[in-house]
Amino acid sequence: MEYRIGLVGCGTVGQGLLEILDKKREFLRDAYGFESRVVAISDKIRGSLLVPEGIDIPAVLGVLGRGGNLADYPKAAPGQAEPLDPLDMIEKTDAGIIAELTYTNIQTAEPATSYIRKALRTGKHVVTSNKGPAALYYRELQDLARKNGLQFRIEGTVMSGTPVFHLAESGLAGNHVLEAQGILNGTTNFILSKMETEGMEYAAALKLAQELGYAEADPTADVEGFDALAKIVILSNVLMDGSLKTSDVPRKGISSISKADVAAAKKAGYRYKLIAHAKKEAGGVVASVSPQKLPLSDPLAGVMGAQNALSLQTDLMGKVTIQGAGAGKTETGFAILSDMLAIHRCR
Amino acid sequence: MEYRIGLVGCGTVGQGLLEILDKKREFLRDAYGFESRVVAISDKIRGSLLVPEGIDIPAVLGVLGRGGNLADYPKAAPGQAEPLDPLDMIEKTDAGIIAELTYTNIQTAEPATSYIRKALRTGKHVVTSNKGPAALYYRELQDLARKNGLQFRIEGTVMSGTPVFHLAESGLAGNHVLEAQGILNGTTNFILSKMETEGMEYAAALKLAQELGYAEADPTADVEGFDALAKIVILSNVLMDGSLKTSDVPRKGISSISKADVAAAKKAGYRYKLIAHAKKEAGGVVASVSPQKLPLSDPLAGVMGAQNALSLQTDLMGKVTIQGAGAGKTETGFAILSDMLAIHRCR
Repeated sequence: MEYRIGLVGCGTVGQGLLEILDKKREFLRDAYGFESRVVAISDKIRGSLLVPEGIDIPAVLGVLGRGGNLADYPKAAPGQAEPLDPLDMIEKTDAGIIAELTYTNIQTAEPATSYIRKALRTGKHVVTSNKGPAALYYRELQDLARKNGLQFRIEGTVMSGTPVFHLAESGLAGNHVLEAQGILNGTTNFILSKMETEGMEYAAALKLAQELGYAEADPTADVEGFDALAKIVILSNVLMDGSLKTSDVPRKGISSISKADVAAAKKAGYRYKLIAHAKKEAGGVVASVSPQKLPLSDPLAGVMGAQNALSLQTDLMGKVTIQGAGAGKTETGFAILSDMLAIHRCR
Repeated sequence: MEYRIGLVGCGTVGQGLLEILDKKREFLRDAYGFESRVVAISDKIRGSLLVPEGIDIPAVLGVLGRGGNLADYPKAAPGQAEPLDPLDMIEKTDAGIIAELTYTNIQTAEPATSYIRKALRTGKHVVTSNKGPAALYYRELQDLARKNGLQFRIEGTVMSGTPVFHLAESGLAGNHVLEAQGILNGTTNFILSKMETEGMEYAAALKLAQELGYAEADPTADVEGFDALAKIVILSNVLMDGSLKTSDVPRKGISSISKADVAAAKKAGYRYKLIAHAKKEAGGVVASVSPQKLPLSDPLAGVMGAQNALSLQTDLMGKVTIQGAGAGKTETGFAILSDMLAIHRCR
């Protein structure tokens, strides 16, 4: 079966997805019966394409790889590369799946939420890696999707393509998730790891993370725990039927932790980790983000570097822990593909 | 949708499954639209029931819990509790799913394989936790199932209900699995953990494992690596398209490892684990089972006690590791349920 795909946003994740769709075309067809045709792209910076016969992926990656604008796509027929607002693109395209890949705004979840609503109202499945809509409007968007016989899928919002929602939905189906505890931010885990293994001070480890591209110039969202907070809100609301707002969750980052704190913990047999935690209580889900000293016997204590991991405490299976990449072009691009394959499996 | 279920074998795993089906009846109906009716049980030791209107689960668990025979089931109509060979039960029942839960015979995979063939030939899905048929005849049985429009599912054969095959099939779909490395036997991991953390000699740790019910009176299958070998053959053939026989896989157990070996490794920053390993090579999959000294940075090094874990090296997602229970009545009973829910999802 062939899926017509539209991309809103075509930065790192979008380009990662396009590379995979191109490289794995034959395998996805032969192994899963999944065929794809990218028919539309709209990106506020990089321009737009609306090509019903299908976009040539290597050609478009060539343009974007050179830092060019989609207006330079060499195979566009007249009018196909005209600038087009994402909302207009979603309205005009006949894509069956919209991949919403714009940047997270955790305060407003806009403009992503407007794009997703528009797609679901015009009969298109939505797959997103954007934490804003998932953290702030998951239930509304899920209900809107169901009402229209569509799917709204968010695997890429937590731990990139390391399967968290797929795990709960398929392998752990039938369980109640009672508690979730995770290392959900790779930047802070990289910094804490360097502070322990190389004896670096916080500032030096942060600088190294910035040089290696793990941390942004303004690292606040990572180091102060805002990114992990968005993710634990998503996990609470999706896996534990919570109705948390981001403002419900106490948050403490790692910027006040010193090399001496890390060394003292290590000496006592513990390891600092930035832990996102959520637990079902009588009145609902209670969540927090804070640095914790874990005993080395905890499955999360061994998770080093930029890796992520999540432990789910369940009623039938006890604790199940999954560890893998938490970010990356290919890894998050794959998250989007994995949700498309889920739409294909459960069509 | 209601599924009519027949059990071949009703020991620990079968009773674990029955408990879950009973306890979670409303939840499975409300959350997944999955309803079940157990209509047949045949167990070489515990007797048989063939009850088309459905077996009362608390009543049958009461009989079995007292060590009784199914002939004592108080609600049987005349003829419903007559002794019935599994092959005859499979022939006679109108169950849509057969749960094959007899003991593993890794040399012949019998009589389980005959039961499975009979079920697939008479139009019944098969779900099994039996390693024999999965290790020796996976491809034949999978082909037979497909030819008949049925499913043959084996989640419980490796790491009980900790999702391994579900993980590869849903969350990691689209990846090629290039390499698998796991701690797949809880008994040996318990023994090695005790040798390190409590400084026990091998014999003392084995005795403790036997007292706690982790090891059997004859521990050979576990401690000499036969159990882990069956599991790595299954993983190779199912996840990596291998065609390994058990005789293709070199095997070394843990019985020759001393407390001194474990202590020396620990001093050097390593930890002994019984590692089942498989890797795709040019000529096919190459696998082995042997004790390995892992650096403490390896995600498998932190897996202590009776826990199991598996790392899969994939082409898109890099290394993904899952850790959880490797055995247990509820955990393996859940594995069977999880496969039934998969049949339900993909009907």
